[in-house]
Amino acid sequence: MYRYKLTIEYDGSRFCGWQKQKDQPSVQGVIEQAIFQLSGAQVCVYGSGRTDAGVHATGQVAHADLPKLFDGYRLREALNAHLRGQGVSIVDAKRAGDTFHARFDAIERSYCYKILMRRAPSPLLDPYMLHVPVRLDIDRMMQASQFFIGQHDFESFRSSQCEAQRTVRILNSFDWCLEGDILMATIKARSFLHNQIRIMMGTLINIGKKEKNPEIIKEFLGNKDKTKTGPTAPPHGLYFVGVKYESDL
Amino acid sequence: MYRYKLTIEYDGSRFCGWQKQKDQPSVQGVIEQAIFQLSGAQVCVYGSGRTDAGVHATGQVAHADLPKLFDGYRLREALNAHLRGQGVSIVDAKRAGDTFHARFDAIERSYCYKILMRRAPSPLLDPYMLHVPVRLDIDRMMQASQFFIGQHDFESFRSSQCEAQRTVRILNSFDWCLEGDILMATIKARSFLHNQIRIMMGTLINIGKKEKNPEIIKEFLGNKDKTKTGPTAPPHGLYFVGVKYESDL
Repeated sequence: MYRYKLTIEYDGSRFCGWQKQKDQPSVQGVIEQAIFQLSGAQVCVYGSGRTDAGVHATGQVAHADLPKLFDGYRLREALNAHLRGQGVSIVDAKRAGDTFHARFDAIERSYCYKILMRRAPSPLLDPYMLHVPVRLDIDRMMQASQFFIGQHDFESFRSSQCEAQRTVRILNSFDWCLEGDILMATIKARSFLHNQIRIMMGTLINIGKKEKNPEIIKEFLGNKDKTKTGPTAPPHGLYFVGVKYESDL
Repeated sequence: MYRYKLTIEYDGSRFCGWQKQKDQPSVQGVIEQAIFQLSGAQVCVYGSGRTDAGVHATGQVAHADLPKLFDGYRLREALNAHLRGQGVSIVDAKRAGDTFHARFDAIERSYCYKILMRRAPSPLLDPYMLHVPVRLDIDRMMQASQFFIGQHDFESFRSSQCEAQRTVRILNSFDWCLEGDILMATIKARSFLHNQIRIMMGTLINIGKKEKNPEIIKEFLGNKDKTKTGPTAPPHGLYFVGVKYESDL
């Protein structure tokens, strides 16, 4: 078997999420089907992170073992031919070492969350970002977001279905960018708890609406009470944009 | 009656175009219906330009006469409530002078054409720009586009259905911007012939693929032979982004 590293883009609105599920279209399932059509092999595609229904990706990374040696360029072209019209595209495919693991070898994952801040709805952008029809105080949101950086117990920033044993995570960065009406946050860490980014964003949006003070984040990180943090921001504003590996360095 | 100037965004993929047609959803029809629901009046909404099926807009401008005086902000909010989920949004609504005419008073219209230049398809971007899977020579395209600027007979850059009596137009500017893989052209003129921008873009893309030389544009502008110019670039890369009026100055 020959191991390949795939970089993947998808429109999350078309899937029940990354992970294969019975009777629902998943990104993993669609790619495994394309590999089957190409090679006749029923392989498992391992993603670096399991995105939820509605969450988009421009740089999800996965690995899979193929029974035949392919040139990376040709593999990408062939898979994309089988994936046509299904909402998934292989942006890059290359040979990986036999021990490379998309999930366990990842040293940093990057996500973006996009917010459209304007009164009127946007038929062109609303499907791809969170529409917030009120003015957000971005300075407050930026200030609050910096409390997340470093090592913290994110117990109160995970979904009730999160199965992680440990809830301590190290957040590497939380950066902001404003282009016209579009506010974009880029968040990086080795790993995240389930719904962590969406709950952080929901909480920051409340702070941007002046419903809470930026310093409240420090309290939330100290306690274990999930009922006080903001709502889980909707999935369609979230993008899985990239994964870093030691082998990239 | 009170005249209003509306600035409108829409997702062109959902419409047969701006203009009302029997049994097909049009932007004009949807807005007239929203005004009817709001005011009970059957009014005509006059657009500054009739975009074709599939062409998007972020800054289409139209005028309409309403039987009741509305505050601009409230009119926008009320119309957007009626337009919800229909692919059209009123970005701005304001009172206009009784003689203001969205089409005849326009002194400049701006359009953008977006091209995604990369090998792999993009599920997230392909619906909103033209995917060109080969490298385009942008320098050649920029050079060629400058021959369009100024006053020319655009006879060979219009569709066979174009009904304009005169085919001379003055192109004010043709600007380019490259952001990552996305190439964007912004084209400004008082008015355009039917399909003029899409045929100009189709011709420039051929030049970018090195199928033709930039100087060929000069020949095309001199002759009246529509068969030699490039293909009509698809509508989903085209955006009507703004209109300038003397009253804006």
